[in-house]
Amino acid sequence: MVALSRRSALALAGAGVAGSAALVACKSSKPDPVTDAVAFTGEHQAGIVTPAQDRLHFVAFDVITKDRDRLVQLLKDWTAAAARMTQGRDAGEIGAVAGIPEAPPDDTGEAIGLPAAALTLTIGFGPSLFRRFGLGARQPAALAPLPKFTGDTLDASLCDGDIAIQACANDPQVAVHAIRNLARIGMGVVSVRWSQLGFGRTSSTSTGQATPRNLFGFKDGTRNLKAEEPDLLREHLWVQPGDGPDWMTGGSYLVTRKIRMLVETWDRSPLAEQEMIIGRTKGIGAPVGMADEFDDVDFTSVGADGEPLLAPVAHVRLAHPDTNNGARMLRRGYNFVDGSDGLGRLNAGLFFIAYQRDPRTAFIPVQRSLSGRDELNEYIRHVSSALFACPPGLSGPSDFWGKALFEYE
Amino acid sequence: MVALSRRSALALAGAGVAGSAALVACKSSKPDPVTDAVAFTGEHQAGIVTPAQDRLHFVAFDVITKDRDRLVQLLKDWTAAAARMTQGRDAGEIGAVAGIPEAPPDDTGEAIGLPAAALTLTIGFGPSLFRRFGLGARQPAALAPLPKFTGDTLDASLCDGDIAIQACANDPQVAVHAIRNLARIGMGVVSVRWSQLGFGRTSSTSTGQATPRNLFGFKDGTRNLKAEEPDLLREHLWVQPGDGPDWMTGGSYLVTRKIRMLVETWDRSPLAEQEMIIGRTKGIGAPVGMADEFDDVDFTSVGADGEPLLAPVAHVRLAHPDTNNGARMLRRGYNFVDGSDGLGRLNAGLFFIAYQRDPRTAFIPVQRSLSGRDELNEYIRHVSSALFACPPGLSGPSDFWGKALFEYE
Repeated sequence: MVALSRRSALALAGAGVAGSAALVACKSSKPDPVTDAVAFTGEHQAGIVTPAQDRLHFVAFDVITKDRDRLVQLLKDWTAAAARMTQGRDAGEIGAVAGIPEAPPDDTGEAIGLPAAALTLTIGFGPSLFRRFGLGARQPAALAPLPKFTGDTLDASLCDGDIAIQACANDPQVAVHAIRNLARIGMGVVSVRWSQLGFGRTSSTSTGQATPRNLFGFKDGTRNLKAEEPDLLREHLWVQPGDGPDWMTGGSYLVTRKIRMLVETWDRSPLAEQEMIIGRTKGIGAPVGMADEFDDVDFTSVGADGEPLLAPVAHVRLAHPDTNNGARMLRRGYNFVDGSDGLGRLNAGLFFIAYQRDPRTAFIPVQRSLSGRDELNEYIRHVSSALFACPPGLSGPSDFWGKALFEYE
Repeated sequence: MVALSRRSALALAGAGVAGSAALVACKSSKPDPVTDAVAFTGEHQAGIVTPAQDRLHFVAFDVITKDRDRLVQLLKDWTAAAARMTQGRDAGEIGAVAGIPEAPPDDTGEAIGLPAAALTLTIGFGPSLFRRFGLGARQPAALAPLPKFTGDTLDASLCDGDIAIQACANDPQVAVHAIRNLARIGMGVVSVRWSQLGFGRTSSTSTGQATPRNLFGFKDGTRNLKAEEPDLLREHLWVQPGDGPDWMTGGSYLVTRKIRMLVETWDRSPLAEQEMIIGRTKGIGAPVGMADEFDDVDFTSVGADGEPLLAPVAHVRLAHPDTNNGARMLRRGYNFVDGSDGLGRLNAGLFFIAYQRDPRTAFIPVQRSLSGRDELNEYIRHVSSALFACPPGLSGPSDFWGKALFEYE
């Protein structure tokens, strides 16, 4: 029984191509942003401005222990495992643990031979965690639970959570392996509250990425915040000194919304109506009246009939920064299909993910604008909602997830 | 409003890399088995011995019309759309249909700019279909509903179906787009009964593919039937003349089983016990007592203690052709994670897919062997089961899915 790391297993398996589309497609000696490792430590957590990977496994945990020390130890253990897995290694040894032949393996094995696949693991803490463990005074004002919005049809069992971990990777098996092993390590301390798989990222977070499409068939996230815009990121994405408690400086607030799309209803509406509702063309993705995807939205032009070319209730108008006091977020959502709904329809939609400096001036006002007037509401249902405080990145090997939150004077 | 095909949209979008890991990874002018198109017509349906793609969207439909002609028309419409989509084109025009400006688009748009991604669409007909539309006398004896097996915990709403379509592709957005558009085209004639997404194929169907791993972390499908073994395929996979009704000659019978894996329980068991239960090592995947993955299973050797090295209840022993009168199937299953189960656990497992010449001498006896004795049963639950007759491939443009079944003297 030989202890295997993913790298040594990779060597044993030769090309080690199992399950990886990218590796099957080409072999290159150059660094490959699709399969290579993303740095785990740094000023900010990876998985936020990191060029959006293609696959998602998101999990929200309930903390089931009352023992603060056990929770802190888990955060240390998770950090160590995350540092390994994001670098393409196992969560722990596959072989029997030294001296304890009856111990289960410290890694579950399904990612043996797979590359790092640009895996990022991003942690956040939910408002409910701050009601326990003596953390009450540490809760940022920006982490107040989200208000109810018009039309919300939330399923409480799919909402909130004490701790969230977002796993993004270019191979779903790598993202699933990471979350599954973190859940395994957390046994007895945390319990999976809800979990979501996603594919087909619906936003670009880097100017090097083409704009992908959501399940309404439209390009999504054309005007997203991008990694290459440091001034905008400072203003809209990263928590700045003085914004709130120090432990969040350099961090960001994460809002997730699982948005069921009634695709069957949408698919019955005429193209012209779809384009009116979105405010962009379906093919090119250009704003109504414009020629190119990246042209500015034209709010004011009127047609021959004297009506505005861009409908007053068009989604791009209602969601635009100019309509929301300049509010911007970094979105990195994913499409999902969770089987069918028992009523003859696919259970499909968008798992919306947005990072921001302060939800009180970003997600909340924008969603108020959308939930009241957006014509899209006829075709969507918000079924899950959550908010998490994602601390800054780890400074080095002695740092761990939540250290500055839990270890204070 | 311009009518766009996926190819023309691709040209407009330049590199058109949205959502495709493989395309981001490399650009090559050579044919690429990961992104290129698989032929839609041929002696057998594609998607069976086609090298297993990385992603799955499987759907089972109920037929909700009583009108035989409407059903046949749908099969013709589906065939036309499938022929287009498998070649990297849209299901129909994206733009307004000529002369009917209020018509919805004939394609939903989310795959614009994506390559064919080796999409295959494979159709099968379930036993329940043969109770209607005058098809009673056309039902093959091999298509009798599956028996109950020891330990089955099936959810009837996830079982069976009149018509199944398996979409496999190397991009999940392409597979989802195909099923979603077929469901759209079928509105009013069929209704989605159940649907399943999968990732990380758990079997190789070609000798050129490495053996992937299931969510127990073990290599799965090492001894699968392979495309390069025509004699074995004739004997075990393809329905032969005289086996039953002519319309199935050259076809194959498809068994699907959704197998929930209790991964949290499995992850607590020692490596030695996991390897005993499977009968292979976890790292290399070699049969117990052997050195290499592809070594023959050693049924007879005993250890120093006089006990068989390969446990009497090891999975590889119980599932082996030598234990089941030579029974073999072509497996092309996928891993799945469907969120969490409300009890703090991931809802994860294997969506088992197996094609065979006759389930009465293949899946049924093998599953009887496994369901009675396999130690794995402690860690798995069969929650969905279905059987479909998949006819042979289409002969050309005038042929359509089900033609030989529905159009007879």
